[in-house]
Amino acid sequence: MKRTIYEADHEAFRESAREFVSRHVQPRSEELIENKAIPREIWLEAGKAGLLGLEIPEKFGGGEAGDFRFNAVLGEELSRHSAAMASCFGIHSDICAPYLVELTTEEQKERWLPKFCTGELITAIGMTEPSGGSDLAALKTTAVRDGDDWIINGSKTFITNGYSADLVIVAARTSPAKKARGITLFAVEAGTQGFERGRKLDKVGQPESDTAELFFDNVRVSSANIIGELDNGFIHMMQMLPQERLSAAVCNTAHAMAIYDETLEYVKERKAFGQPIGAFQHNKFLLAEINTKLTVTQSFVDSCVYAHTQSDLTPIDAAKAKWWSAEIQNEVLDHCVQLYGGYGFMREYRAARAWMDARVTKIWAGTNEIMKELIGRDLGL
Amino acid sequence: MKRTIYEADHEAFRESAREFVSRHVQPRSEELIENKAIPREIWLEAGKAGLLGLEIPEKFGGGEAGDFRFNAVLGEELSRHSAAMASCFGIHSDICAPYLVELTTEEQKERWLPKFCTGELITAIGMTEPSGGSDLAALKTTAVRDGDDWIINGSKTFITNGYSADLVIVAARTSPAKKARGITLFAVEAGTQGFERGRKLDKVGQPESDTAELFFDNVRVSSANIIGELDNGFIHMMQMLPQERLSAAVCNTAHAMAIYDETLEYVKERKAFGQPIGAFQHNKFLLAEINTKLTVTQSFVDSCVYAHTQSDLTPIDAAKAKWWSAEIQNEVLDHCVQLYGGYGFMREYRAARAWMDARVTKIWAGTNEIMKELIGRDLGL
Amino acid sequence: MKRTIYEADHEAFRESAREFVSRHVQPRSEELIENKAIPREIWLEAGKAGLLGLEIPEKFGGGEAGDFRFNAVLGEELSRHSAAMASCFGIHSDICAPYLVELTTEEQKERWLPKFCTGELITAIGMTEPSGGSDLAALKTTAVRDGDDWIINGSKTFITNGYSADLVIVAARTSPAKKARGITLFAVEAGTQGFERGRKLDKVGQPESDTAELFFDNVRVSSANIIGELDNGFIHMMQMLPQERLSAAVCNTAHAMAIYDETLEYVKERKAFGQPIGAFQHNKFLLAEINTKLTVTQSFVDSCVYAHTQSDLTPIDAAKAKWWSAEIQNEVLDHCVQLYGGYGFMREYRAARAWMDARVTKIWAGTNEIMKELIGRDLGL
Amino acid sequence: MKRTIYEADHEAFRESAREFVSRHVQPRSEELIENKAIPREIWLEAGKAGLLGLEIPEKFGGGEAGDFRFNAVLGEELSRHSAAMASCFGIHSDICAPYLVELTTEEQKERWLPKFCTGELITAIGMTEPSGGSDLAALKTTAVRDGDDWIINGSKTFITNGYSADLVIVAARTSPAKKARGITLFAVEAGTQGFERGRKLDKVGQPESDTAELFFDNVRVSSANIIGELDNGFIHMMQMLPQERLSAAVCNTAHAMAIYDETLEYVKERKAFGQPIGAFQHNKFLLAEINTKLTVTQSFVDSCVYAHTQSDLTPIDAAKAKWWSAEIQNEVLDHCVQLYGGYGFMREYRAARAWMDARVTKIWAGTNEIMKELIGRDLGL
Repeated sequence: MKRTIYEADHEAFRESAREFVSRHVQPRSEELIENKAIPREIWLEAGKAGLLGLEIPEKFGGGEAGDFRFNAVLGEELSRHSAAMASCFGIHSDICAPYLVELTTEEQKERWLPKFCTGELITAIGMTEPSGGSDLAALKTTAVRDGDDWIINGSKTFITNGYSADLVIVAARTSPAKKARGITLFAVEAGTQGFERGRKLDKVGQPESDTAELFFDNVRVSSANIIGELDNGFIHMMQMLPQERLSAAVCNTAHAMAIYDETLEYVKERKAFGQPIGAFQHNKFLLAEINTKLTVTQSFVDSCVYAHTQSDLTPIDAAKAKWWSAEIQNEVLDHCVQLYGGYGFMREYRAARAWMDARVTKIWAGTNEIMKELIGRDLGL
Repeated sequence: MKRTIYEADHEAFRESAREFVSRHVQPRSEELIENKAIPREIWLEAGKAGLLGLEIPEKFGGGEAGDFRFNAVLGEELSRHSAAMASCFGIHSDICAPYLVELTTEEQKERWLPKFCTGELITAIGMTEPSGGSDLAALKTTAVRDGDDWIINGSKTFITNGYSADLVIVAARTSPAKKARGITLFAVEAGTQGFERGRKLDKVGQPESDTAELFFDNVRVSSANIIGELDNGFIHMMQMLPQERLSAAVCNTAHAMAIYDETLEYVKERKAFGQPIGAFQHNKFLLAEINTKLTVTQSFVDSCVYAHTQSDLTPIDAAKAKWWSAEIQNEVLDHCVQLYGGYGFMREYRAARAWMDARVTKIWAGTNEIMKELIGRDLGL
Repeated sequence: MKRTIYEADHEAFRESAREFVSRHVQPRSEELIENKAIPREIWLEAGKAGLLGLEIPEKFGGGEAGDFRFNAVLGEELSRHSAAMASCFGIHSDICAPYLVELTTEEQKERWLPKFCTGELITAIGMTEPSGGSDLAALKTTAVRDGDDWIINGSKTFITNGYSADLVIVAARTSPAKKARGITLFAVEAGTQGFERGRKLDKVGQPESDTAELFFDNVRVSSANIIGELDNGFIHMMQMLPQERLSAAVCNTAHAMAIYDETLEYVKERKAFGQPIGAFQHNKFLLAEINTKLTVTQSFVDSCVYAHTQSDLTPIDAAKAKWWSAEIQNEVLDHCVQLYGGYGFMREYRAARAWMDARVTKIWAGTNEIMKELIGRDLGL
Repeated sequence: MKRTIYEADHEAFRESAREFVSRHVQPRSEELIENKAIPREIWLEAGKAGLLGLEIPEKFGGGEAGDFRFNAVLGEELSRHSAAMASCFGIHSDICAPYLVELTTEEQKERWLPKFCTGELITAIGMTEPSGGSDLAALKTTAVRDGDDWIINGSKTFITNGYSADLVIVAARTSPAKKARGITLFAVEAGTQGFERGRKLDKVGQPESDTAELFFDNVRVSSANIIGELDNGFIHMMQMLPQERLSAAVCNTAHAMAIYDETLEYVKERKAFGQPIGAFQHNKFLLAEINTKLTVTQSFVDSCVYAHTQSDLTPIDAAKAKWWSAEIQNEVLDHCVQLYGGYGFMREYRAARAWMDARVTKIWAGTNEIMKELIGRDLGL
């Protein structure tokens, strides 16, 4: 189905994004996988290409796009090449950016945003804890006031960009008695004493992203590093969730689409029993089903993206987009692997990698089960 | 998700449609089921309310809407009450209308269209044959020229409105050697000698619609009753298919939505083991999934409806909308039945009836398998 | 896969069952559907053929088989012809029989069992209530002691054999304070004052069975009609559940098998696009999948039947057999309908009827959800 | 459900297998993964423990068990620890053994079997080729007669044990004109000139197994190395397929069972939102479903194993067991990953590894699609 939400300037930006990928990312793919990290130079090149500060005001060096479609275009193009690139950049540009733009003081903006745009300041967000999973309200990391500073203790896990982030937005409990209403967000900067990272986690997929555990042992942070209001961190996080979920949905869909496109070419060329394997009716119907599901999903996600540009996207619609796209993405990629036969089990094949990369999308950003719980509650159940 | 394709005049028309249903259809529901037919009075009332001639030019008494969204609104409102009502009216207004408007001569228009709009001339279309199913190119009904007339022999089956139609558009083979390129469409009028109907078929669902077999035994039809070009019937039918499939998709979705809405209310009220059954997490998640699937499907179908108003709907996207919506509809209704427990197996419950009504949507208008075949071919497989 | 649990005498009994069906049931199929009941003569013929008293001691006229495989054979043969016949006979012979044999006094046995075997005494069991569904512990029908009698008030619904039963085993609350431990089973005989039946329910499928609501308005029953121990009815019912679930599983599987067999023949004969529809790879794979699922399910159910003959069947394995077979049965029959195309939506086709008949198996005898709850609890969850 | 096919001596053998795993395999797990190979010492220890020659006659040092249940026990115990261990040993003991026992001359037996049993001669079988996948009849590797020798040219891929095998059974085309009837099996021994291996393939899962490509460049093999009859290799392979498929089915089921068992324990301990995550009804029902599917599958596979000991297992039933168990295994493991949440995406977790390990079972040993094709053909379609 012809997509209708993108206009000429979005497509022009898509070209820039593509060029960035083909010039700076694709040639180094194997290196990224090997090193389990995106090297700083790639961040800096992205900064030069104007990809990192889409939501940042111009006066701090950003694009001040005010239009999530640019974010979506970038997410799509990165996802088509590598799910992990999209995750790392998405955490920075789609997830962390709004915190640093909407909840910060002028002083903080000046301190952080210029380097945020150039790629000198890579960001991450620390919500999930080892014992807590999707249950944000139960977090155990604490921040205790000490004069004008705060002393943070605790740990976070599964933090994308965690190993190399220069600034981590950390959710910590400041008023234990107040439960969800007693959480505050702190910017913890690399090099702060007591702030340590664990090794890069050995994940099933997305090896290029430097997911890590973070440890906070009496980390002293100034009040000037509080993001948003004291004790209001939970609400702040809730407000940012629709964009996080939408960003995930955009990437899930584009990622599956890219591999589907390649698989379609493959089944036209690969022969068995004397004909292209795509000519077997079973495979033909399967690809028709996959194509339909992707079309339907893309249509819905596009509508959500457009709604978000109109400030009309509800957290619940975003939750639907997140879980549904993750489900379809994983289902589609499993079929693609099968269509590649034995090659689908070989890591050097993109379908194989994509299948492993995608598995996490049903888990992170609120598991699909959490999304259903939220939707169910919204139905009054 | 907020729907965006309908504007004020569509919503005003929706009110008329609703009023028609609540006034003229709902009170007689049981009678329609009993008699396996929609009585003529209901057609005439629909005519009075301006519901039948949406695509018909004003000078013949129609609405000349030139906007399929009105058709969609009507299909939705009828489907919410009764899938069969939507089928019968849809055959008339969405399927037959374009043949009678776009392919007819001025003389034919004058002859048929005014009564088409008032409900005095109920229409049907005879494509499917007992031996052929979805394989239109294989049809066996023949029309042999005899002077300026044609003699039709053969039979058709599963014809919605078949028992009471005043005019049936019949596809017959006029040039046997030319296969698909030798089929012509004829208007066969009630009362023509040799044109007989079988009994109303005893269907699994949609009892209110008078589906029937049609028999043609040396039926003499004048050349003046040819619709469109001689030998070009197959192409004519192909051109009309997107709208047929879209009409089906609109109704499938609205039908499932209506029953889902009722089921959601039911699970909030019905108690078991001391709590509303909707509060059980299994049911809560299930309803969240259903709600998501309906939202996603509605979003896609709406996009298709809008594309159709822009003459941008491809037959392939229409095929996707048809099979996907039928699949989701049937899946959703099966869950609704289960949520009603024992009552879901009782015919007086709407969920039970809807479950039976819906089963045909995966079969008719080109089976879902045919849709996948077409989509697969379009992918180059 | 070759079945291994049946021996020569079971197969001989299978022949008797088949002859009974082909002689006494098949010729009257339409009549049964029309009348929503199995006529008494058929019950009497079944009695003559020795089909009704398999578990009843010889001295009361039964077969005293002591081997559930005979019940299973009968269930299979009835199911192959009609799911409803299997239900009605199953309630009598598989479900009610153990109550009347294992929990009764010698006096009760003499009173009821001889006629039970001849078909003069048709039985039913009244557990489910309008407000309660699968939640047996919540039942509201009460029995209050009055001298040596009990006064029963309340109602039951969805009672198979309910309209024509001569004796209904009714679960009623005798000690309200004791919840599940305060329920007693009473034999209520037809003609007892205050015991009324509602109309035969208009069900989605299984029209041949006379499912009905039962009303008890100050029904006086003697203590001599208590079945089992006072206040111990819930435990009694729990003990009988494995056999009830197993009986359901046997019938579900045989019913789906029968229709699958017919569908396989149909797809070999029915042609479309120039070849038998079974030759299309999509259909070929689909039938291979169906065949596999039926083989796997039959293998498991056979193992359960054999385990039951060794008194080794746990309630949990029976619960698995019940829900799994119901799921597979419904899935298979939905595919069969689709393979019949338009004919699959016509009631005169066996696949269409079977599809409607089967829908209830996921609901009755404890919904599939209840089965999963029980299995989950047994896992310690 | 209580398993019934195993007797005391099988269970005793199970103890030996378990001890072997816990003593010789488990402590070296990480090393195997790192090295992408099972070291020779483990093979030798398995030989000492009498695990390798179950089907080999006693006079050549084997167990001469004549009872596939011992193979099944070994397959289960290895699979519970590592799918790859089970694959490597299965190729040797379940797949290659019958070729070397049933099709060989006395001279060949003496040459190969003693070392086969001790682990000094590791075996592999080379069927699949880069261009061919599951289409055995299309193989391109050729063997051309040269005096009493044969000159082999071609390549094989996805060969389990391929990198370290001392003897590979290679299918090569000896009579090109005779298609499937012109294939012969050759034993190609390590060190033969022109026989090279590619690197160990970098697979999605099962890293411990040394899967490799094999290259044959004018490899000279004596006629004394022909296994079975000249030109009859295809038939020989077909005859061995049921055991290969059954071996796969046994391992698939045991592998999924092991991870399910661990996951069940995990969900009882892991807490979220204040309770064990297994207590959430969604998870409880999910685990009940998984448990049921594993029970049903195990029951069927056990019946197949038993049938095979009676020489009663048809290739079609084996095909059903293969595809069905692979499907269930993959479905179950995907759910297990999800239940582990973020940890399910970390390689150090067994559920994560198992999920990757299992993906190939739907592909190898004849893809699931090939199995369905075979079953469909057997149905006469």
